[in-house]
Amino acid sequence: MKGLFITLEGGEGCGKSTQIRLLGEALRAAAPGREVIVTRSPGGTPAAEKIRSVLKEPLPGDDLTAETELMLFAACHAQMCAKLIKPALERGAILLADRFCDSTEVYQGAARGLSAEWIREVCDFVRKGTTPDLTLLLDIDPAAGLARTRSRSQNPENDRFDSENLGFHTAVRNGFLELARREPGRICVIDASADAQTVQQNIREVCRERLGLF
Amino acid sequence: MKGLFITLEGGEGCGKSTQIRLLGEALRAAAPGREVIVTRSPGGTPAAEKIRSVLKEPLPGDDLTAETELMLFAACHAQMCAKLIKPALERGAILLADRFCDSTEVYQGAARGLSAEWIREVCDFVRKGTTPDLTLLLDIDPAAGLARTRSRSQNPENDRFDSENLGFHTAVRNGFLELARREPGRICVIDASADAQTVQQNIREVCRERLGLF
Repeated sequence: MKGLFITLEGGEGCGKSTQIRLLGEALRAAAPGREVIVTRSPGGTPAAEKIRSVLKEPLPGDDLTAETELMLFAACHAQMCAKLIKPALERGAILLADRFCDSTEVYQGAARGLSAEWIREVCDFVRKGTTPDLTLLLDIDPAAGLARTRSRSQNPENDRFDSENLGFHTAVRNGFLELARREPGRICVIDASADAQTVQQNIREVCRERLGLF
Repeated sequence: MKGLFITLEGGEGCGKSTQIRLLGEALRAAAPGREVIVTRSPGGTPAAEKIRSVLKEPLPGDDLTAETELMLFAACHAQMCAKLIKPALERGAILLADRFCDSTEVYQGAARGLSAEWIREVCDFVRKGTTPDLTLLLDIDPAAGLARTRSRSQNPENDRFDSENLGFHTAVRNGFLELARREPGRICVIDASADAQTVQQNIREVCRERLGLF
């Protein structure tokens, strides 16, 4: 049995966390015998989670440079690919990831201004051929997405990336849409402005059509 | 006044920590008005020290891959260059670092087997032209160096890199010596098998000859 690697991508407030949880539950219900793993980037292994805390918890007077961020995301992906994703796919599992290399390319490239070509070289070095079978891009207008994140009361995930300005988040959205245009066979754009149940139905429909799931 | 960037490199038990401390004290005594900074890689800024803890504290069942290590060292160097080294050199400080990019090239390249060319590309990306004015390579036979580290009782710096086998440490020594042959104008090999005071005298002599210090 071949494993399946599905990633969810998108800007702040697009609903990735909710959707990946619902999709995981639906897959477990639809195929009770099959291993389903829900993970996230940065993160996914103990070491990668520790690296995540460097990225997510700002240290006063020591803002991370764009180069530092890129290297830290790359470190997470190296560890995640070798220790979590590849072994899971070899066992035939379905692995769902909240963000992966597309986010690196978009956040560090399109939005932070690092060379896209260089970022792809770095990503290729760390992932060694591990590519998602399907990427669901949850697309939402940045202003609407940010309004959603701000309405979450005291959400611990409101981290420093959320505090960037609207121009940054617009660059992120455009970067993701550009990737989707470049790789339509892998990346499927989902309208994330609808209510959560509608978005989830659309996601399952795509998983059915493209991967034969459900 | 031009800043000076001096790095100390070498394998386990070569005495870097002692020598850099003594050199820092001697420089402060010799030029009381001048700013002298003693730092280390990985480390040197709050974020880089946090990354250091990922590299130095093993997590059960989640050994870091060679690729993860390289990316983490690169992240440290990116942060260290931007936030510590460049500003210090611009202020005219003398900055002493316990390890820098040469260690990355040797440990991740010669010893872990990653491509040296690729490591240099990564290092060039993160350091953006920041190169030591002088690198002191403390050279010691790996067996003698390891015997020194083992004789330290419960030293917290006895980390997972010390537990590698002798073949690994021999590859590290050879890697450093190869770098010194390639860059004799920057890297000076110091015999580290002598007692600490003799080694320190030799180090100060080199600093005098090459940089006009003391």
